[in-house]
Amino acid sequence: MISKSQIKLITSLQQKKYRTKTGLFVAEGKKIISEFLDEKWELHSLFSTKEDLFYNQSPQLITEEELSRISFLKTPNTALAVFKIHEHKFHKKKGLTMALDAVRDPGNLGTIIRLCDWFGVTQLVCSTDTTDCFNPKVVQASMGSLTRVALQYTDLKTFLSGSVLPILGAFMEGKNVYKTPLPKEVVLVMGNEANGISPEIEELVTTKISIPRFGNLQKTESLNVATATAILLSEFVRR
Amino acid sequence: MISKSQIKLITSLQQKKYRTKTGLFVAEGKKIISEFLDEKWELHSLFSTKEDLFYNQSPQLITEEELSRISFLKTPNTALAVFKIHEHKFHKKKGLTMALDAVRDPGNLGTIIRLCDWFGVTQLVCSTDTTDCFNPKVVQASMGSLTRVALQYTDLKTFLSGSVLPILGAFMEGKNVYKTPLPKEVVLVMGNEANGISPEIEELVTTKISIPRFGNLQKTESLNVATATAILLSEFVRR
Repeated sequence: MISKSQIKLITSLQQKKYRTKTGLFVAEGKKIISEFLDEKWELHSLFSTKEDLFYNQSPQLITEEELSRISFLKTPNTALAVFKIHEHKFHKKKGLTMALDAVRDPGNLGTIIRLCDWFGVTQLVCSTDTTDCFNPKVVQASMGSLTRVALQYTDLKTFLSGSVLPILGAFMEGKNVYKTPLPKEVVLVMGNEANGISPEIEELVTTKISIPRFGNLQKTESLNVATATAILLSEFVRR
Repeated sequence: MISKSQIKLITSLQQKKYRTKTGLFVAEGKKIISEFLDEKWELHSLFSTKEDLFYNQSPQLITEEELSRISFLKTPNTALAVFKIHEHKFHKKKGLTMALDAVRDPGNLGTIIRLCDWFGVTQLVCSTDTTDCFNPKVVQASMGSLTRVALQYTDLKTFLSGSVLPILGAFMEGKNVYKTPLPKEVVLVMGNEANGISPEIEELVTTKISIPRFGNLQKTESLNVATATAILLSEFVRR
């Protein structure tokens, strides 16, 4: 059984305005919820169609119909949890820092967070116009990696201006990444889906890099930002 | 103005059954439609809210409302075309051949086709249970690359059994791809989103390869199949 006010609260969390107001966000499915529980993120409420899904938490039992009313997924997945937003602690760490300039698609941001986690990148700096990482679609696409990658939303220009590290940026026309020396201590900037890196950020980039095309025809549009991030991060770690 | 029978035909093309029956598929948006027109794919019908979108084709003019009735996109994009399905010619070519074992998500297949195009892989062999490449979501996600990458749906076991080339397969536990010699003439197999490469195909794989994790914690699920394909193709071409 779920109350009207609970339904109202949960559905409101699709909007950033209400996430900011309440300091809450939604995660769905056993696997992803378990990751947040394991990392001790503070639970606000937990709903499930099954009683014993989580070994140390008793959910409020609801029906399939109730779950589909509150779920943001096309195919609701047994459980939905509301957690308190946890300010990521941003420690100055060695290695690569990833920076995003206005990445807008939640699926792309989620995939990039998951890639950072895979490749051991623990810090992700996002321009203030990058999609909110507590958007339900980002939470789902990042598959729990939000618990291991620290995100900071900030004025990217100010952040980069203050950085002493070399700043590499992904551009359509840049140096061939396979033949460019890649520093270990570096900031790697990826740009917006449609427009790439903005001119004011471009000014701060020390080296422009590119993933060369190998297709015979020079027609392929460009690589998707998440795909390009996968290739570039692989290139950084493999050396 | 669009007729009821036209609406019925177009909406039916969401289903493979009707695409097979009619030999037709749908492409949307100026850019993607232009790619098929440029490559001389046979046009069946063309609808647009604008008269002069294509320099050499006059569309049937329709309203925004009519477009949203026939469009498969959340945000319909000015034009929708119906093309005749074109059997891809499969020439034996040098280099890497990509093979997919039951990739089911249309977005993943579209991204993989786009990646093949980018990296100059012109041949993609798909198991018969891989998503149909003329599914509207695949057509959109592949961004016109379908005109440059030849796909063949076939019994993958038979195809691989008959191949004299080394067969590399992506597994969670395999040799570190960064440290493994990669032949130039090769078949690279990627598996299903949930289950990976099936046991009967696994038997035919000569070398299992893996993208190593670099994250400190060993928790990250796995990489998405399209993301993993991006990294592996990059690794093959860069050497």
